Amino acid sequence: MYTITTETDVQDMARGAVLLGSGGGGDPYVGELFLRHQLAEGRQAKIVKASELADDAFVVSIAGVGAPTVLIEHLVSETTFLRLLEASESFYGRKIDALISAEIGGANSMFPLSLGARSGIPVIDGDGMGRAFPHLEMTTFSVYGCTATPAVLMDDSGNVAQVSATTDRIAEDMVRAVCASLGSMIYGSFYPMSGRQAKQLAVHDTITHTLEIGRRIRQARESQADPVHGVLEFLDDPKNGRHAREIFDGRIVDVTHETRDGWHWGRALINSGKGDEPEFAIEIQNEYLVARHRDRTVTIVPDLIAVLDAESAEPLTAEMLSYGQRVRVIGYSAAPIMRRPECLKVFGPRMFGIDEDFRGVEDLVPPPGRAR
Amino acid sequence: MYTITTETDVQDMARGAVLLGSGGGGDPYVGELFLRHQLAEGRQAKIVKASELADDAFVVSIAGVGAPTVLIEHLVSETTFLRLLEASESFYGRKIDALISAEIGGANSMFPLSLGARSGIPVIDGDGMGRAFPHLEMTTFSVYGCTATPAVLMDDSGNVAQVSATTDRIAEDMVRAVCASLGSMIYGSFYPMSGRQAKQLAVHDTITHTLEIGRRIRQARESQADPVHGVLEFLDDPKNGRHAREIFDGRIVDVTHETRDGWHWGRALINSGKGDEPEFAIEIQNEYLVARHRDRTVTIVPDLIAVLDAESAEPLTAEMLSYGQRVRVIGYSAAPIMRRPECLKVFGPRMFGIDEDFRGVEDLVPPPGRAR
Repeated sequence: MYTITTETDVQDMARGAVLLGSGGGGDPYVGELFLRHQLAEGRQAKIVKASELADDAFVVSIAGVGAPTVLIEHLVSETTFLRLLEASESFYGRKIDALISAEIGGANSMFPLSLGARSGIPVIDGDGMGRAFPHLEMTTFSVYGCTATPAVLMDDSGNVAQVSATTDRIAEDMVRAVCASLGSMIYGSFYPMSGRQAKQLAVHDTITHTLEIGRRIRQARESQADPVHGVLEFLDDPKNGRHAREIFDGRIVDVTHETRDGWHWGRALINSGKGDEPEFAIEIQNEYLVARHRDRTVTIVPDLIAVLDAESAEPLTAEMLSYGQRVRVIGYSAAPIMRRPECLKVFGPRMFGIDEDFRGVEDLVPPPGRAR
Repeated sequence: MYTITTETDVQDMARGAVLLGSGGGGDPYVGELFLRHQLAEGRQAKIVKASELADDAFVVSIAGVGAPTVLIEHLVSETTFLRLLEASESFYGRKIDALISAEIGGANSMFPLSLGARSGIPVIDGDGMGRAFPHLEMTTFSVYGCTATPAVLMDDSGNVAQVSATTDRIAEDMVRAVCASLGSMIYGSFYPMSGRQAKQLAVHDTITHTLEIGRRIRQARESQADPVHGVLEFLDDPKNGRHAREIFDGRIVDVTHETRDGWHWGRALINSGKGDEPEFAIEIQNEYLVARHRDRTVTIVPDLIAVLDAESAEPLTAEMLSYGQRVRVIGYSAAPIMRRPECLKVFGPRMFGIDEDFRGVEDLVPPPGRAR
């Protein structure tokens, strides 16, 4: 158990959540403000390990759904969150014992913590993907039979929808439709589950990871050390099944952005500066999906790609990339559960139209100091 | 109280419902099949006057929502209807004492009768508009404070959404969005109301009217009398505040259809045959909205426009109009409650972009035999 009591912790976590967003997931800033407000009011956010929960505890996932651009314009209303909690407990007919993020990458890292701090409900150290993904059904929860619905959806004006879908793919369509009809920003409770399911299905320790990533970056900056090195040192932990590589260091020589079919598509080309020919490319479909060095894949979804500002190691979302930026790129392994065949069927490369088998970053890129 | 037991009654009602649809509301055929199936199984549809209900009776409106083209391809599942009934009683926490149509024009005339026959629940002789309109909020119920939601929505596959909106305009957007996300055909229970509200807010006797309109057409055909005359004789009943005029008789010389922004837009031009210049125009926006004779308005929304085949007096929906058809056109007054200022604010001409005040057909067109 860990209790968040300082603004520094919140800032560290927000920075770590952007890194785990793999370019997507939205800016955590609004949720960060909300959480900081809770701390300023003397409240705390309690983080517990899933293993600390009773098997029959009742857990739900609290998330914002919507366009990141709308989210940024939209301060989170405390009233809405409390109403959502009340409506959810009434709809599910149970008191909620713990909250969990469905998606630790980006904005949805902060909402459960904020509501947890406000209401005194603990938040599980884990989530449903260890990163960000664009669809509701792209979670370990969903793959292993814990469905996203019944769900309660709510906007800031008091409009409410309760959705029960036969599949999470349909749930995604229904939730997205309700979201669009309500001005593109809603909050919801999803994935009602037992403590036992949370223990078995979550990608564990991801809140702690956001905190530690943010800390490493901050401390390296303070001590004038190489912040990317600090992050890598934490992320690359083979004993615990985690692998990270610095996969490129260069300058962005071209970046394209396009919004089409409700997706943010793009490509960033990065050059180490020695020639005109771009050497390194990252394909974007909301998130960074695949990174290729001279056409050789070096990291591919569901493994994560983090693009950091070369000086400050600030993690950059896809929207933040711009021509001329000096960046360093990290490939980071998804949690082992995320790489299982049944998971790859839902969020592996082919689900994003990439005709390529998944291979882990540790197999694609040798560890530092070892030639390939 | 009237009990529907024969296929002839059902066919008469369906024909009458198309006439009251003012060109819109969708084809009642699927609901008609479903209701005929109930009768064939030995069941009956009981129609009661709102005045027969207790003030504290619990009434809901059962309706299909969706694209008429999808409706036609989609047989109604008895299981879905029964599940909707069960889910609605559970959601509202009350046994449903009576059903009512929100919209008597077109397809939604048949669904409450079908479910009523299947489940033994009586159906109120009346509805929320006495015609068809494209939006959920365009009902007398809504104008006078009986809201469309909380509503239960369901598709044939078992996907369910419960919607509670702060306004019926927002409810319309949410319901339409859920409908689109589920393949454009859903069923729902709307407008939970008391017996007292049904008495005060409904447009009364409209099921009986559909039946009588259909009968007049059928009987006139059987006796080789003029069927349009038979219908007019019934509809024009000034003592009871109802006025009808034959407003044109001619041949369709041009008809345009366009689907844009989710609406069916169009215009039919009709000529009496004596010259080249079109004399008569009907503007279509899902329903027939305004009829003009040589640019002079002769019937305007919420008054109804019925286009009948000249020979058979078969009522024609907007989709059925085609070049060369001989038609006779009737203007028919909306119920007095529908013409009140507070109603015209929600479904008067200006709500459809027509910059014109409402005037009743009886003021726009003199009675037969009297010069203008």
